Amino acid sequence: MPSWQSEAVAAMYRVWTDELNNPNPDRQESRETNDHWGDLTAEPRQVDYLERDIAGTPALWVEPHNANPDRVLLHVHGGGFIGGSLYTHRKLVGHLAKAAGIRALVISYPRTPEHQHPAQLIAVSSAYQWLLDSGFDPKHIVIGADSAAATLALATLLQARDRGAAMPAATYLISPWVDMTVSNPSFEANASRDAYFHRDVVKGLAAMFLGNTDPRDPLASPAFAELAGLPPMYIQVGGDETLLDDARNLALRAEEAGVHATIDVFEGQQHTFQMAAGRAPEADDAIGRFAAWVKPMLV
Amino acid sequence: MPSWQSEAVAAMYRVWTDELNNPNPDRQESRETNDHWGDLTAEPRQVDYLERDIAGTPALWVEPHNANPDRVLLHVHGGGFIGGSLYTHRKLVGHLAKAAGIRALVISYPRTPEHQHPAQLIAVSSAYQWLLDSGFDPKHIVIGADSAAATLALATLLQARDRGAAMPAATYLISPWVDMTVSNPSFEANASRDAYFHRDVVKGLAAMFLGNTDPRDPLASPAFAELAGLPPMYIQVGGDETLLDDARNLALRAEEAGVHATIDVFEGQQHTFQMAAGRAPEADDAIGRFAAWVKPMLV
Repeated sequence: MPSWQSEAVAAMYRVWTDELNNPNPDRQESRETNDHWGDLTAEPRQVDYLERDIAGTPALWVEPHNANPDRVLLHVHGGGFIGGSLYTHRKLVGHLAKAAGIRALVISYPRTPEHQHPAQLIAVSSAYQWLLDSGFDPKHIVIGADSAAATLALATLLQARDRGAAMPAATYLISPWVDMTVSNPSFEANASRDAYFHRDVVKGLAAMFLGNTDPRDPLASPAFAELAGLPPMYIQVGGDETLLDDARNLALRAEEAGVHATIDVFEGQQHTFQMAAGRAPEADDAIGRFAAWVKPMLV
Repeated sequence: MPSWQSEAVAAMYRVWTDELNNPNPDRQESRETNDHWGDLTAEPRQVDYLERDIAGTPALWVEPHNANPDRVLLHVHGGGFIGGSLYTHRKLVGHLAKAAGIRALVISYPRTPEHQHPAQLIAVSSAYQWLLDSGFDPKHIVIGADSAAATLALATLLQARDRGAAMPAATYLISPWVDMTVSNPSFEANASRDAYFHRDVVKGLAAMFLGNTDPRDPLASPAFAELAGLPPMYIQVGGDETLLDDARNLALRAEEAGVHATIDVFEGQQHTFQMAAGRAPEADDAIGRFAAWVKPMLV
């Protein structure tokens, strides 16, 4: 049984679904509703937040008071390429960084529908290169991402690998959406359990991102990429997600390519249920698992 | 007609009222519901937040990127002495500081029911003295407060005056609650319009704060204090508040004592409606008025 606290995630998605089905354009509710995403998350406390421009990209340094300043989580926020922000993910990333005892840099990128692939990838790749150029040891960097941003994080790694840049120590993916064909069986299998991400919704998000790009282009859909040479990967996914197969297939393909991949499926949980951090025990468990997994990677 | 955005404030108070009438102690909802107070406020953006210990009191520096670092709003957060936090008021104070072009320091204090008067006053007085000791020119300090914290801000000024300490340049009070006898006629007149602060609720908050203190003690109820010598005061209050008379009487008594007092009553608005900053036009109007009023005070 999911905790009542984690049900708040499903409740928020039902609000989004209701709004999608009953739009009121006068109120700009989509924008405002999305702004409330981060309200799911409790304050991590004892964390400082500094907004800075990083390689032309608005970014937020998230600095727990206990953080080792030489270790950094570069986190790419989710939101279907169209939503999410430094602010919706501020507290989630605060919890992750605090648990791991490191600081974090949340980065933004141009969003759809105004900007299509590869505008998002260019921004994220630039931020990663900025970290390397700034003297961070790649062995002390973990790249994190949730939802659609997993595509951006993985494509950034693929590009870095292909140009001979250093790989970070690890990758942490929350509810990764990495297949723009939106064709996995879990879209049907979990259709009644997932509170928002139904196939037509995800197809619409993919279309805005892709423009004229082939949905099987490996930089737009890392599900179709050759993953050899990528760093160890830790994936967390909710058991009730329509995107469950995106996560499972990614873990399988990573292992086939010789990349160490760990996946935890949280039964009864929704997409990015970690947003209930500080309130829902499942979210706090997931964040504790991330910290336990990543700490040995960054020594 | 109040804007639909400002109705969110009343909607939140109705949730609080419902919870008060239907408590579920298993869920610790009071604590959690109060944590959501700040969800009313949009992100001010381009503001940094640094959590620090100030004179033994947890505090939050709120630093807009455009801020003059020599000018400071010392803001005492509201919450009936029992609730509110650095976090619930982070964004509201971000809007205030950003509009005024100054930085802000939000301070906390021991809360009821564990701690009674004068524990709260000692913490706030210490923070003000810390600012003076740190070299801030008192002419460049404005003391702000909302709701119950207006009592703490005014008592801090009274204590500073009486010990011969420097006065700040100005005082800004949002929906001040300054009379612990809870006897003003607006508790009846606005009983049907105020969504939460009914007399029995406020009486309960006062009892937890006062302990054995006389409700007419001027440091616990500045409504009964001699106000001569205090700096110029700007008061904002919602027209639908049960605390409307607290604000009006304070302005009258200040003027009688030779203190310049300005009061704006916002028709149809609830207690601390400024929490909807960045969303409700009434809140943004109020914050703009604060900025226009305070800027000439801090030159």
